[in-house]
Amino acid sequence: MQMHPNKDTQLCMSLSARPGNFGLRFHNHLYEQLGLNFYYKAFSSQDLPGAIGGIRALGVRGCGVSMPFKEAAIALVDELDDSVQAIDSLNTIVNTNGHLKAYNTDYIAIEQLLKKHAVPTDSTFALRGSGGMAKAVASALRDGGYARGVIVARNEAAGQALARNLGYEWQADLGDLRPQMLINVTPIGMTGGAEADALAFEADAIDQAETVFDVVAIPAETPLIVRGRAKGKRVITGLEVIAIQALEQFVLYTGVRPTQEQFQAAVAFARN
Amino acid sequence: MQMHPNKDTQLCMSLSARPGNFGLRFHNHLYEQLGLNFYYKAFSSQDLPGAIGGIRALGVRGCGVSMPFKEAAIALVDELDDSVQAIDSLNTIVNTNGHLKAYNTDYIAIEQLLKKHAVPTDSTFALRGSGGMAKAVASALRDGGYARGVIVARNEAAGQALARNLGYEWQADLGDLRPQMLINVTPIGMTGGAEADALAFEADAIDQAETVFDVVAIPAETPLIVRGRAKGKRVITGLEVIAIQALEQFVLYTGVRPTQEQFQAAVAFARN
Repeated sequence: MQMHPNKDTQLCMSLSARPGNFGLRFHNHLYEQLGLNFYYKAFSSQDLPGAIGGIRALGVRGCGVSMPFKEAAIALVDELDDSVQAIDSLNTIVNTNGHLKAYNTDYIAIEQLLKKHAVPTDSTFALRGSGGMAKAVASALRDGGYARGVIVARNEAAGQALARNLGYEWQADLGDLRPQMLINVTPIGMTGGAEADALAFEADAIDQAETVFDVVAIPAETPLIVRGRAKGKRVITGLEVIAIQALEQFVLYTGVRPTQEQFQAAVAFARN
Repeated sequence: MQMHPNKDTQLCMSLSARPGNFGLRFHNHLYEQLGLNFYYKAFSSQDLPGAIGGIRALGVRGCGVSMPFKEAAIALVDELDDSVQAIDSLNTIVNTNGHLKAYNTDYIAIEQLLKKHAVPTDSTFALRGSGGMAKAVASALRDGGYARGVIVARNEAAGQALARNLGYEWQADLGDLRPQMLINVTPIGMTGGAEADALAFEADAIDQAETVFDVVAIPAETPLIVRGRAKGKRVITGLEVIAIQALEQFVLYTGVRPTQEQFQAAVAFARN
């Protein structure tokens, strides 16, 4: 199918400051496997209104939106799904005959993963981070009934605002807290970052937790995940987050839900 | 290459009211054959400024422009090649880091074909038509030194204006003229049109001509071309026009000129 595009081929795309390969490989692989006449292209742009205008004018079917456009794009679409309204941040735009509806499939993915891994809703947790993705994760926790949480963030203003808006506590550091779930939503542990080799939480806190959850996807096996796994903890990885959020985008764009086998094969392909 | 697009894949596209398959098949086939990391997508749009804005914002490398946008797009680009200035009509936009330069590769293709087929410049000719493509063909004839021509057009205002601007005569019908070259730039003979089975010129005029030239590309063998070929005339087809104009777009977008064999193989592929 990809080898022989035709005039009816539909375009989906991503828009970010620094495009990666995961999404386009994931989507294009599934288009091919499922025989769908779609093509997925990664774009970077410095002109968000122009890019969204182009999506409308050219009839691009769907667009994945990444940093730094997730908040600013909200003013440029026609309708917000609940997943966006919860957090004032979108990562997905679906274009139906010129009507743009925004979703946040990160939020949807977090919700799904907490259920899939059967994390008890009465778990205490600490979430490290205060950026856009931290808002998505914390909102999914709040909406999932996880009431006993602390936002850990060095940025006091952002951390306090996030905590206050969702009914959580804020602390600059973990201190002597030893919650049942530890969630990293910072770049700590990310390949190429300044703290690639660092643990996002103190080793002792990891050892005393039941669940460790890292949204860093590259690598999937961050120092936090490696230690959590070694200690027999329940582990949720950033790879699961980006894979499920991409899957939900795929379903929104095409109306087709791949089988679990097709999904896993696409994830494996996309990682290479 | 097409099977494994990545984040560095460059997009080229076409923009028209009713996209066809020729261009996208031609370009994508050559990308694949030459191992170029490009993808070609056909778009239709009702919003030309939005579409051109999208080309800028998304860094689309090149865009083929068809009816009904060839004149209106001129105001939306940054620079006009001589091929556009000659006829106030573009069919190609090349985007170099946000700077849009417009070309008319139809004009370039006509110029090349008159030379390739060695049509004597002192040939008398009649050109039937008065639309945008007729302007491109007549301008290429004028600039190529073909001074002895008549524009034949039922639309008196458009026909006279075209003739006057280029220093040719105008007639509503061919009458008893029997020029050495007959050029059809109307839909007569086009598949699916109201006059698909009609000869664009009187049979007697064809029989007395030396050269017949039809810009209708579907089918390549129009009634005019079929008769001209049967009578042993020099024949130039619309397929040659669309193929060469596409080739020149390809060179402008990629900076690579395919071999004659690669070009012919792409034309054969694109026609299927």
